[in-house]
Amino acid sequence: MPMRDSFHDDLDGIGTSLVEMGHLVSKAMERATTALLTADLKVAEEIISEDDAIDEMQHDIEARAINLMARQQPVAGDLRTLVTSLRMSADLERMGDLAHHVAKLTRMRYPAAAVPPELVLTLQEMGNVTARITQKAIGVIESRNLEAALQLEKDDDEMDILHRRLFEILLDDSWPYGIETAIDMTLLGRYYERCSDHAVSIARRVYYLVTGEYANSANN
Amino acid sequence: MPMRDSFHDDLDGIGTSLVEMGHLVSKAMERATTALLTADLKVAEEIISEDDAIDEMQHDIEARAINLMARQQPVAGDLRTLVTSLRMSADLERMGDLAHHVAKLTRMRYPAAAVPPELVLTLQEMGNVTARITQKAIGVIESRNLEAALQLEKDDDEMDILHRRLFEILLDDSWPYGIETAIDMTLLGRYYERCSDHAVSIARRVYYLVTGEYANSANN
Repeated sequence: MPMRDSFHDDLDGIGTSLVEMGHLVSKAMERATTALLTADLKVAEEIISEDDAIDEMQHDIEARAINLMARQQPVAGDLRTLVTSLRMSADLERMGDLAHHVAKLTRMRYPAAAVPPELVLTLQEMGNVTARITQKAIGVIESRNLEAALQLEKDDDEMDILHRRLFEILLDDSWPYGIETAIDMTLLGRYYERCSDHAVSIARRVYYLVTGEYANSANN
Repeated sequence: MPMRDSFHDDLDGIGTSLVEMGHLVSKAMERATTALLTADLKVAEEIISEDDAIDEMQHDIEARAINLMARQQPVAGDLRTLVTSLRMSADLERMGDLAHHVAKLTRMRYPAAAVPPELVLTLQEMGNVTARITQKAIGVIESRNLEAALQLEKDDDEMDILHRRLFEILLDDSWPYGIETAIDMTLLGRYYERCSDHAVSIARRVYYLVTGEYANSANN
């Protein structure tokens, strides 16, 4: 009995660490967006140097999850929770990488602003949607609420609309910036889209964990 | 004793399926490159429709790995092998998605060729390097050879060089194609780079599995 209690404490501890990691990643992405849109080198440098901390958090969560599996031989439900934790920590780690990419692009173009005025609003909205989806994904890790998990798919539709708008602006005949800016914007659009995809994927993993069924097989 | 034998048969079976999945993904990416460079709609459509089979393979490998963990309560070494299999199947699934993306871009531009003549060679080389890295990653899954695992890092350097060359050509003042082609090339470059990254990541996972140490923390 005390063994099982300690097991569930450790299992809860992994859940808590995942949520903490989620907040860290979410904050990194939000600050990366601010740094990008205000050409703030200092903040960009901070995000770049903080990525290691996110990677270490993932390694720590993984080690604890595998250790629990090995020592405690959990029953099927707890085992699925642990496996899902491994996957979610991988999603979060990748989201951290993408914040890091946004910060690196900011640094590369500094002291110029990477994003031309015509696209500031669209990128800001992409950042907002990513932040909202990420916050919701963290909520789903905590609550395991299936309604909330399904809702993320809709937020992701918004991201698709923004992504299309980005390309429309780039492809408009009046686009006055050259190829380099178009390349930067294409990559940025991809980073935000992928970051949202990973948040949606976290919600799907929770959905699968709870129901044993896939919420949606679409993925890109 | 018969129980352990059946366990190791099942474990070997998962390894075999991973290798099969690797060959499927590798073939999909090679065919996607051919379709891209020859504007072959038929092959592009095949790859697009075959992605579901790759996804199903991943689900199957995952289900078998989790089932083995739950039923057999493996010792630490076997458990790590199973967890690593889960991760490698996720890498392979994502590589399949990227082949799918290349095929979709091919279809979107058909009957035109997506890649302008100036970039055919660079894209072909990116495809070749990706194919070589992927084949080596599959070999590492089979052999667990650490030397071979480390070698993939060097192949990845080649991909970085090709990626830079791609941007140099796009940014040359004489680039005669517009923004749309530049966007396409940026995305394609990213798809090949990410596909190689996942192959390298597979080799790193094997390295970690065997040694308990990280081969290299760099990742993008």
